Amino acid sequence: MDKYKRYERLAAIVKIFSENPNTLINLEYFMNFFGIAKSTASEDIDILKSVIEKFNFGKLITLPGAGGGVKYIPIANIKSYLPFVQEIKEKLKDPSRIIPGGFLYTADLIYSPNIVTKIGEILVFPFLDKNVDAIVTVETKGIPIALMCAKALNVPLVIIRKDSRVTEGSFVSINYISGSQRHIRSMSLARRSLQKGSRVLLIDDFMKAGGTIRGMMELMEEFDAEVVGAGVMISTEKPENKLVDNYISVFVLKNMEEEKNIIDIEISDWILKG
Amino acid sequence: MDKYKRYERLAAIVKIFSENPNTLINLEYFMNFFGIAKSTASEDIDILKSVIEKFNFGKLITLPGAGGGVKYIPIANIKSYLPFVQEIKEKLKDPSRIIPGGFLYTADLIYSPNIVTKIGEILVFPFLDKNVDAIVTVETKGIPIALMCAKALNVPLVIIRKDSRVTEGSFVSINYISGSQRHIRSMSLARRSLQKGSRVLLIDDFMKAGGTIRGMMELMEEFDAEVVGAGVMISTEKPENKLVDNYISVFVLKNMEEEKNIIDIEISDWILKG
Repeated sequence: MDKYKRYERLAAIVKIFSENPNTLINLEYFMNFFGIAKSTASEDIDILKSVIEKFNFGKLITLPGAGGGVKYIPIANIKSYLPFVQEIKEKLKDPSRIIPGGFLYTADLIYSPNIVTKIGEILVFPFLDKNVDAIVTVETKGIPIALMCAKALNVPLVIIRKDSRVTEGSFVSINYISGSQRHIRSMSLARRSLQKGSRVLLIDDFMKAGGTIRGMMELMEEFDAEVVGAGVMISTEKPENKLVDNYISVFVLKNMEEEKNIIDIEISDWILKG
Repeated sequence: MDKYKRYERLAAIVKIFSENPNTLINLEYFMNFFGIAKSTASEDIDILKSVIEKFNFGKLITLPGAGGGVKYIPIANIKSYLPFVQEIKEKLKDPSRIIPGGFLYTADLIYSPNIVTKIGEILVFPFLDKNVDAIVTVETKGIPIALMCAKALNVPLVIIRKDSRVTEGSFVSINYISGSQRHIRSMSLARRSLQKGSRVLLIDDFMKAGGTIRGMMELMEEFDAEVVGAGVMISTEKPENKLVDNYISVFVLKNMEEEKNIIDIEISDWILKG
């Protein structure tokens, strides 16, 4: 008789997949973990597949062959995130978020673990099958979102520094023009923090003209990295001509009027249309 | 007949708890989610309790009464993390981590989502019943660990800035002495990012003399916050007299000799002794 009952194994497998999204786990792992036969492990996975789909928790993908196994994709379709995105949109419209100087206060949202977990899952969704090797962000406010993107894709996070306080050996720096303030700034990344030729997804919290993402792209060239895309939580509608074109955002900030206490923000089309 | 089979409900509940650690969920939530009676929901939870304990996945705590419910604590005992901590210790001993200037390269570990998830769970373990309201860290390298601490406790993260580039309204700044370099530095936090009187846990990646944590403590006084404790991934053995005393670390760096290629690092006693 098997050491564990089926419902016990299923519960345990759900836990293992939840903690290891986008990670290929072979059947042998489960056979050893539970002390079960291959056929039993296969049956467990088949049952779990339908459970996960039934509850809209994402999907399990089986890759056949010697190097194969099962992989849990935590997000089945982008539309299932609509209620969440709508809730965050309402929060973003709160006029008390307007900070003198034309800034939008978002720290309570982008530093909230449960919220950034979901924002991360949404931002990586279009890149699930793009073989991303690493998530790249620039300090500071984009780091929590970027880490959750990295967790959702099961790849390492790389953090670019905005100064040269790099205590990680030799590093590469570039100058870039901060679009919103038209200042020349620099960003630096240690040589050893990103392998040459990596496929990277650039992540940040906010994008106006796109100067920061543009700077990240230039820095990536120094690492022979291939930029698969860029994602931000909020992009502004204006200026229409950004310094980058290949990007997605969760929200589009259309207008913000300090005097009238108005924040006009919309959910991006690609999410609304699913 | 119930809409879902028991094994389906159990799998779904595991998923819900995994994504919401340390969050009180009442039975009504499950009754509505699955369309089941209270007695059935209670039975489900009881079964799950034993499953979670059987696999050492942590524990479920039931709080009775009107405001009660069930809470999932993702870590049952610190000893179950020993194999993981030992694996990271071996990685930390790799002499290629020594950076000229006496620094230790850890970015590959502290920016790896799966590793920081577990480091976060370990660091919050002694504070699970301490009613922590927020995790506080200072940019940049400690942010990923701090976010995972916040996720494990289900509380918000607060990020102190090392400069005055605070675009979040009025802020408080303090000067502090960076212990390792004896420089005067400043750190700033926006007024609205932390409620007065909060109970906070301070988190960072590395601690030598403790100047940064000491500075964070001073800044917390400005917010009338109560510092419940401090946790870092790595603390150094020397200097023995730190600027703070109430702290825990996962690893203790005993010695690092650039010339001899030696990194002597140990797992902290409180983890070894469980």
